[in-house]
Amino acid sequence: MTDTPRAVLIDDIATLVTNDPGLGRGAVGEIADAALVIEDGRVAWAGPRTRAPEADARVDAAGRCVLPGFVDSHSHIVFAGDRSREFAARMSGQPYSAGGIRTTVAATRDASEAELLENARRLVGEARAQGTTTLEVKSGYGLTVADEERALAVAARVTDEVTFLGAHVVAPEYTDDPQGYVDLVTGPMLEACAPHARWVDVFCERGAFDEESSRRVLTAGVERGLLPRVHGNQLGEGPGVRLAVETRAASVDHCTYLTAEDVDALAQAARRPDPTVATLLPGVDFSTRQPYPDARALIDAGALVALASDCNPGSCFTSSLAFCVAVAVRDMGMTPEEAVWAATAGGARALRRTDVGHLGPGARADLTLLSAPNHLYLAYRPGVPLVAAVWKDGELVSGRP
Amino acid sequence: MTDTPRAVLIDDIATLVTNDPGLGRGAVGEIADAALVIEDGRVAWAGPRTRAPEADARVDAAGRCVLPGFVDSHSHIVFAGDRSREFAARMSGQPYSAGGIRTTVAATRDASEAELLENARRLVGEARAQGTTTLEVKSGYGLTVADEERALAVAARVTDEVTFLGAHVVAPEYTDDPQGYVDLVTGPMLEACAPHARWVDVFCERGAFDEESSRRVLTAGVERGLLPRVHGNQLGEGPGVRLAVETRAASVDHCTYLTAEDVDALAQAARRPDPTVATLLPGVDFSTRQPYPDARALIDAGALVALASDCNPGSCFTSSLAFCVAVAVRDMGMTPEEAVWAATAGGARALRRTDVGHLGPGARADLTLLSAPNHLYLAYRPGVPLVAAVWKDGELVSGRP
Repeated sequence: MTDTPRAVLIDDIATLVTNDPGLGRGAVGEIADAALVIEDGRVAWAGPRTRAPEADARVDAAGRCVLPGFVDSHSHIVFAGDRSREFAARMSGQPYSAGGIRTTVAATRDASEAELLENARRLVGEARAQGTTTLEVKSGYGLTVADEERALAVAARVTDEVTFLGAHVVAPEYTDDPQGYVDLVTGPMLEACAPHARWVDVFCERGAFDEESSRRVLTAGVERGLLPRVHGNQLGEGPGVRLAVETRAASVDHCTYLTAEDVDALAQAARRPDPTVATLLPGVDFSTRQPYPDARALIDAGALVALASDCNPGSCFTSSLAFCVAVAVRDMGMTPEEAVWAATAGGARALRRTDVGHLGPGARADLTLLSAPNHLYLAYRPGVPLVAAVWKDGELVSGRP
Repeated sequence: MTDTPRAVLIDDIATLVTNDPGLGRGAVGEIADAALVIEDGRVAWAGPRTRAPEADARVDAAGRCVLPGFVDSHSHIVFAGDRSREFAARMSGQPYSAGGIRTTVAATRDASEAELLENARRLVGEARAQGTTTLEVKSGYGLTVADEERALAVAARVTDEVTFLGAHVVAPEYTDDPQGYVDLVTGPMLEACAPHARWVDVFCERGAFDEESSRRVLTAGVERGLLPRVHGNQLGEGPGVRLAVETRAASVDHCTYLTAEDVDALAQAARRPDPTVATLLPGVDFSTRQPYPDARALIDAGALVALASDCNPGSCFTSSLAFCVAVAVRDMGMTPEEAVWAATAGGARALRRTDVGHLGPGARADLTLLSAPNHLYLAYRPGVPLVAAVWKDGELVSGRP
């Protein structure tokens, strides 16, 4: 075991994004010429470097930017199989449909648990190297009791934010009996899966689950002690947002097609102590050539907006929150600051976490050092890997300062 | 000095992109389960691994993809100063105009040559780590005889593909005498700069140089032994494409706004032995919220299309050709294969190079190993840094296999 210094000072930070408006300027609580002290895996102090306290060790940020690690509240990284040829075919003109999920279901069922774990670990490592320090992971490519439970067991080995998504699509064995599949998901599958998960999720969309089935899934999950979240309004207008707000879900994800009533409902829900966040997934709309959601309208109405990757082999195989930030700025009407907030603090809200997504005293010391003087570079330099180093719980887990 | 093995076998390549239709399948000359032999900095052999010849050393590609290094035929990396705040302001509603170039001119003039060289070297290294093995570099932020010559001297220290772009915008000192500036560019400035450059370029656009001034710049450059290339049709329809074809320029870059006549002219020019390539710069349209050019229409008409970064601090600060590939597929109607070809072989055509952009025997051993089984991943996994290792002239220059 190495001697870990008790207090580590990260010094000469050109721009420190705290996401704490009480600590710095603007919505992202920006401090220029800043420093930050890590102690026992938490942020002990953050402020102007001229006022930094003593510490046992010093890391030189050398005029670069430090921001909270990305909180990616939506991924599907427990899977097997390759869908790059399907992607290429889609980019040559074929439309995306929810049915493609079944390709991955077949490959995932065929894979060993060791293969699934290795793939998930590789993707967690890849995401971490790109600055993601909190990553939600869903099941949803098993669709049998045993395969869903296995996926969640794998997920629980790579993250604390585990989501049961047995209701991703109707399992192929139940094509002629979708209600029978909902009975399975809300009965024996839930029973087997709930111990591994924190969240229950449902894909409430034409081609997946209708409103009533989705409500049953969420209600059953909540009764079993899980917290609800929803996939909705991805491929067309629908009941997803309404249902998410009704069930006090932590988040409704996609929100590509919203009515004025949906926007209103999300704005109302943002004022609750347990808000329903609108989580936008720019990579999906990018990789499926869908239109982009109107983040500007959501923010202007008062809704809470998060950005997440939706990393999955079918509709969006990016693990880069920086990429999502750049696309959200380019195509969803977000300012760079709003997008950075949404990928950090917004993701934390979507996971109902107060310990991550910000760098105020007491927060987990999950933070990213960029090869850039400020956080605007995440949008200003699209596609460029800017993450120089990543700390999680105060430990350097990727790169080097 | 280390002992370099004479012949190195790169083995177990799941997908080898050769860009040589005689060697493999399709326009990118794809070979499955391939191997490649490097000798004396060149490709000595490429084909199915079962037929690979003996070699002195072996690199294990372990089922990943190898493709030619990117040939980025358009960049402006000799500069100083930061324009991230201007970018953020633009993303909050201000339009892009060519005048912003002058901000960088002021900072570049103020910088020392050592600073300019350090910045350029850093960006070349960053591009190389992302798979770019040939990079064109322009002047254009000096706009005095001494400052342009200095920029080209810096460029010549980081690349062989140096472009004199004194005619980027009219220098601030000549605002009231644009013809006087053209006299300077085509006279003493050209005289001082030509020895450092291979190419002459002009920004033929409203707000920069009109058709007649642009023609003077190109003609003078050609008379002084430089090869012409053109910036045109970025901000609106205009004479850029017509002039490029007329002067037999190697490339006309941007091509965001084209008339049917422009597309026809480029299709005609593609049939010449010295074609004029249409170089599209997806990062610029991304970062300025311009519409995207219609690559599909160009390709379908028979034009040659290249993709380049245009890496510069104002309109597009990406150095990632992978990002450009992903955007070109998403938003310009290119298939993943066409986009990969355009960023490698297409760039080589735009620089009139036959030694790079492909991996047939005799080509320079400039190649990239991806953390992916095939080249479609460059579009399938947008934003994810997939480059595992890069060789230039047969030497490993970035990453590790």
